Amino acid sequence: MHTDSHPFDAAIRLVPEGENRYRGGTAAAYGNMVGPYGGITCAVMLQAVLAHPQRQGDPIALTVNFAAPIADGVFDIEARPARTNRSTQHWTVQLSQQDAIAATATAVLATRRETWSAPEAAPPSQMPPASTLERTSLPGAPAWVRAYDLRFVEGGMPTSFDGREQPHSRTEAWVRDDPPRPLDFASLAALADSFFPRIFLRRRTFALVGTVSLTTFFHADATMLVEQADRHVLCTARALNFRNGFFDQSAEIWSDDARLLASSHQIVYYRE
Amino acid sequence: MHTDSHPFDAAIRLVPEGENRYRGGTAAAYGNMVGPYGGITCAVMLQAVLAHPQRQGDPIALTVNFAAPIADGVFDIEARPARTNRSTQHWTVQLSQQDAIAATATAVLATRRETWSAPEAAPPSQMPPASTLERTSLPGAPAWVRAYDLRFVEGGMPTSFDGREQPHSRTEAWVRDDPPRPLDFASLAALADSFFPRIFLRRRTFALVGTVSLTTFFHADATMLVEQADRHVLCTARALNFRNGFFDQSAEIWSDDARLLASSHQIVYYRE
Repeated sequence: MHTDSHPFDAAIRLVPEGENRYRGGTAAAYGNMVGPYGGITCAVMLQAVLAHPQRQGDPIALTVNFAAPIADGVFDIEARPARTNRSTQHWTVQLSQQDAIAATATAVLATRRETWSAPEAAPPSQMPPASTLERTSLPGAPAWVRAYDLRFVEGGMPTSFDGREQPHSRTEAWVRDDPPRPLDFASLAALADSFFPRIFLRRRTFALVGTVSLTTFFHADATMLVEQADRHVLCTARALNFRNGFFDQSAEIWSDDARLLASSHQIVYYRE
Repeated sequence: MHTDSHPFDAAIRLVPEGENRYRGGTAAAYGNMVGPYGGITCAVMLQAVLAHPQRQGDPIALTVNFAAPIADGVFDIEARPARTNRSTQHWTVQLSQQDAIAATATAVLATRRETWSAPEAAPPSQMPPASTLERTSLPGAPAWVRAYDLRFVEGGMPTSFDGREQPHSRTEAWVRDDPPRPLDFASLAALADSFFPRIFLRRRTFALVGTVSLTTFFHADATMLVEQADRHVLCTARALNFRNGFFDQSAEIWSDDARLLASSHQIVYYRE
């Protein structure tokens, strides 16, 4: 399908508004319980860098801090190159609504060159292929859930919130955009947030949650993303710790031929 | 010992220079191969937030992006509250020398309250106590290495760079400031970078390396840090992937009674 007509591309579309400034807007297709899905906010803030005329290289690291709820409607993004070196470029980004900052971000781009390379971690072995698994259907879930084809091997959304505390919150799943869309850096940045809150899995009770800060490291280069195309990626997620209002989540996103595309770490506010 | 006289406190000392602005300087005790140890840069950028009159709460997340080498000498830090909510506060921070940005950072502070809490990960079992291990001595290493009492159970600096590639780069170690100093948020932020580059462990060859972006999540509150005092903390570090000039490192820092104090993730540039 032609990506210009894909809801993801519509959701991250930005209109230049002068040097370093862009205007964007929330998209119903990526709505969350309140305001937009965090992943789409990551994607649009990265997009402001990727679309910038001074951009040099591809993403290596992205940190997005969710400073305040984003209201449905328009927002302004300022993306500023903080430092450009020979092979790396550092950016600071802010998203604001009515002149109040709602999210801050930093991004690092780089021009890679071929060096000795080696994986150290591996994806889960014995994952059944995505085609053999049923797509998760969550009636009543926020819109963004339907923007992903989610196929869980372990650690999907609990079917009932029965309060039976679980020993762990691990997830293993196949994920892709729905409708299918060739993977790129912006959609990978969005996908890194496509896991249900670990506390739901661990406690099987509802809690108010909100990601506070999310960092994604991009291990893939553009060629690897082109090779992955629009097929499902293999994802894992887990928490280390839940403590007095904040828990962490680490996720890995693997190609379907077992190469690490991205690793992502977030800290999430929760309230009972 | 009185912390005012500790080299760490001297290294993160800042002089206010008007609203949101501070002047600091590099410290020989925390020197690296070139310029300062990355951990001390994290600490001093966090310190600008902690010392700010508008500070509200304790650190939850800190991301520091190393945009350019920092020259020995003075630097300027600008720390700006981007958004203050009821229980969280978001900061953007920049470190510059001669008006060129050398590092950018974001920090999130929060006021925690007691909620359901539970660990999910655990520290390595069967770690011998720090007191039974020998302190690592690395003659000729950069100054910062001597600022830490490092006791490795696994994954210390290779004793020879013999080029024998290892199957993994995992580290397990006890670490504390030397001289001993009661742990606080700034020293925890510094300590999160006190691991040798994973590529040295994995390849046993020398490479030029530099942290590009480092994110630390603080699971401890101030009380837990006071309880840990100046005893050794238990640390683990590992990489997921080394690819075309960048590798990642995830580290965990545990109290000596097995509570997670911080988890930290960085991406590092390398060149053969």
